[in-house]
Amino acid sequence: MAKQKKPQRPKAQTPKGFRDYFGAEVAQRTDMLRTIAGVYHRYGFEALESAAVETVEALGKFLPDVDRPNEGVFAWQEEDENDNGDWLALRYDLTAPLARVFAQHRNDLPTPYRRFAMGPVWRNEKPGPGRFRQFYQCDADTVGSGNVAADAEICAMLADTLEAVGIDRGDYVVRINNRKVLNGVLEAVLAANTPNPNEPPVAYDDLGEWQANILRTIDKFDKVGEAGVRELLGKGRLDASGAYIDGVGLSDVEAEPVIAFLTSKGDDTTSTLANLEKAVGSSEIGLKGVAELQQMADLLAAGGYGPDRIVIDPSVVRGLGYYTGPVFEAELTFEIKDEKGRPRSFGSVAGGGRYDDLVKRFTGQEVPATGVSIGVDRLLAALHMKGRLNTDTTGPVVVTVMDRDRMADYQGIVSELRNAGIRAEVYLGNPKSFGNQLKYADQRNSPIAIIQGGDELAAGTLQVKDLILGAKLAETASQEEWSERPQQFEIPRADLVSRIKALLDEQSQ
Amino acid sequence: MAKQKKPQRPKAQTPKGFRDYFGAEVAQRTDMLRTIAGVYHRYGFEALESAAVETVEALGKFLPDVDRPNEGVFAWQEEDENDNGDWLALRYDLTAPLARVFAQHRNDLPTPYRRFAMGPVWRNEKPGPGRFRQFYQCDADTVGSGNVAADAEICAMLADTLEAVGIDRGDYVVRINNRKVLNGVLEAVLAANTPNPNEPPVAYDDLGEWQANILRTIDKFDKVGEAGVRELLGKGRLDASGAYIDGVGLSDVEAEPVIAFLTSKGDDTTSTLANLEKAVGSSEIGLKGVAELQQMADLLAAGGYGPDRIVIDPSVVRGLGYYTGPVFEAELTFEIKDEKGRPRSFGSVAGGGRYDDLVKRFTGQEVPATGVSIGVDRLLAALHMKGRLNTDTTGPVVVTVMDRDRMADYQGIVSELRNAGIRAEVYLGNPKSFGNQLKYADQRNSPIAIIQGGDELAAGTLQVKDLILGAKLAETASQEEWSERPQQFEIPRADLVSRIKALLDEQSQ
Repeated sequence: MAKQKKPQRPKAQTPKGFRDYFGAEVAQRTDMLRTIAGVYHRYGFEALESAAVETVEALGKFLPDVDRPNEGVFAWQEEDENDNGDWLALRYDLTAPLARVFAQHRNDLPTPYRRFAMGPVWRNEKPGPGRFRQFYQCDADTVGSGNVAADAEICAMLADTLEAVGIDRGDYVVRINNRKVLNGVLEAVLAANTPNPNEPPVAYDDLGEWQANILRTIDKFDKVGEAGVRELLGKGRLDASGAYIDGVGLSDVEAEPVIAFLTSKGDDTTSTLANLEKAVGSSEIGLKGVAELQQMADLLAAGGYGPDRIVIDPSVVRGLGYYTGPVFEAELTFEIKDEKGRPRSFGSVAGGGRYDDLVKRFTGQEVPATGVSIGVDRLLAALHMKGRLNTDTTGPVVVTVMDRDRMADYQGIVSELRNAGIRAEVYLGNPKSFGNQLKYADQRNSPIAIIQGGDELAAGTLQVKDLILGAKLAETASQEEWSERPQQFEIPRADLVSRIKALLDEQSQ
Repeated sequence: MAKQKKPQRPKAQTPKGFRDYFGAEVAQRTDMLRTIAGVYHRYGFEALESAAVETVEALGKFLPDVDRPNEGVFAWQEEDENDNGDWLALRYDLTAPLARVFAQHRNDLPTPYRRFAMGPVWRNEKPGPGRFRQFYQCDADTVGSGNVAADAEICAMLADTLEAVGIDRGDYVVRINNRKVLNGVLEAVLAANTPNPNEPPVAYDDLGEWQANILRTIDKFDKVGEAGVRELLGKGRLDASGAYIDGVGLSDVEAEPVIAFLTSKGDDTTSTLANLEKAVGSSEIGLKGVAELQQMADLLAAGGYGPDRIVIDPSVVRGLGYYTGPVFEAELTFEIKDEKGRPRSFGSVAGGGRYDDLVKRFTGQEVPATGVSIGVDRLLAALHMKGRLNTDTTGPVVVTVMDRDRMADYQGIVSELRNAGIRAEVYLGNPKSFGNQLKYADQRNSPIAIIQGGDELAAGTLQVKDLILGAKLAETASQEEWSERPQQFEIPRADLVSRIKALLDEQSQ
């Protein structure tokens, strides 16, 4: 007979890649999301909160015949008699649920439908340092409008949002590019191609692989710069590690439109757009893209959003492979030090663009959409660096317990304070050691401790201990430096609220 | 060869038992949770947000050797080479994660640890009408204090919370009972038992099944009343359907302490406690429970919480089987009609109590804890009935598009309004049909439409359409009844903000 296993205690641990948020961290995110929701609402966007769980079918990232379709997501199969239940999964972003919601409720929703959504999403990925498998997203999308005014509006809203949460004008820039311009550039590359007279000419539509290779190369522009991209578009290049990276194999003439595109940013919008026009040559789609950028610049100027805040910048390449029209990215431009102490700009905190096949999977109908997603955690980190977060971690006033039979008296004191809007609590641990009570108040970062022993009770008074001053004195051992006020003093019980309020005010100055 | 399946379109549907929340529904819940967080914070509680996902081991509801341990929860197994990955699950409440967090972080957390948590939880249950598999909970718990002052504090906080969100004093009551009193009653039952002289006397600790039967019967007190409980404690009774329900088999004398307990509520706390004292006889644990109730009543009275708000009421039996000390429940006392039109009180919106083995599973150590959970959806429903929810679903001011080449002008108008804090948007659909634009404004519940055609542009004016008045006129076909103000009028472009503000003010009166 098998031995019975000894019962083991479960480990008290978050699953790998997940974490807990405490106190001020929770409040800071809540406050920030509330501010963002305020801006989105003012722009006419409506809140949407869908469930964390969707059918894998609706999320639609997976092959239908894979046995366990949970690559990248957390998924499980519903129980049913025939072991044939639906596969469900945690949402991996807020766009896939939007597509499902719009398709499901399209007859009841206004079109265009402006909606915002905020909440956690889940990725079944290998967790790494600072990389979590649950994190917040904060999205706004306009579904059902093909007008670039919708894209311009989202860029303006993004600028307003950054300022509303505490990023100063000048410390951010929203950059705009357009996938159609890139398509025009690809056509220009094709036009520059000298076909082999023995082969039929390559059509733009057949360019799948070539196009993909160029897109991949463009993606590296941020890292390798113009010279690097030139090499990668041509014969290839040695990378930093000494490995040789094969090139796309374009001739210099063929590569030229791509380089012109990436380096087209001029001193102002007019010159940037003129450069882009040259880069796309006679490509119809390319010229359409340039015209869209022009329209967006005009709309934004009319709304008062100049290039100090929102700028046409074709060097923005992130997302160009995914989006179908305008692409935008918000970058925080102030300097921080990287892990090696070198200065660099803080970088991207939000991105988005136009995607025109949102609900096609469900309905067969093409519905144009455009939207933005704010990286909540990165934006919080930025606000933290700029000192713009409410980092007030002041704890409650602590009413100590000198006599455990008089809890009702202490409860009366604490209730009076709370009713006056003052954060307060009575010590609820074992009151035997007064030192432990003060240690607790210290751990709670309490500003004030209130003490009432038998003498004070008889005299109708309270002892008030200024813990903020106490902490300062402990640092410097010189009271005069800090304040005239005493570290501990007696007040009439009847003056409780007014005197504690006054001291809290003094402390916060 | 098998025929290839025709690709099918995915269904655009929430999984069974899940739902979407739109616009005002989201805002109302957010506002309510914010108000509650404010009260909890004032009481010294700290926010905690743990991830949705825990290890099944940490949740600890399941047998270790079940193949698919997902009874009642959504669970899945992590991938690993040996098909031996951890089982993960969505949390089914906020208490299990609190236990894990406290055990994991106990060296860094203050003790007692007052924490609150708000967020969705998931249950893998058969969905039914109005019964969802994802719903919000809103909990506050004090971990590490065995003092009933902690329980009293939670009851006071619960009363303050209900008033803060908009439940008037008099429309709610927090009822308190105590499991220890019940244990004393069970001992009194045992003392009344006349043992068979041929058998050894039954010890209290051996009463497992008998005790469980009595507890189950007590649970039916709400439904069957005193007479019904008497029958069920004795020989049994015919239920409404005509089926015979076996009784516990107590003699009348043995049943008496249970009946005395359930009916002990007197006109005031003093008489209730005197009745309870009689019910528990000489039971030590029972007298301890009565003393705890007395202490709580004293503490609450000292804090200004009289029996009009918080009352000792031994007829509260929900949760008595689960908790180990004080048990409490908040009931809304105003009348509503049930589904058959009969008046009944709204009922319970929150409950909680003391449980003294929170982290024992993890650490082996007993840590006392007490807490409350508010049923967010039920409280929202109650506020809805009392008309205390912000149900303002007014849409944005809509700037219509008369000339699609002048989007920049319209964008300028809308930006001016938004900068003045007015919720506004430009129509982003196909502007061809003006009727569609007004239909859209109607669907958005817009208060005002702004129109600028060529004539208005030339004259430097705008047309303002009062859609609220328009809707009223459409109902009554008589303008005079409602207002002197015209349905549509012209304003100078320069007066945009002041005039729109004035009209919005007028409309909201």
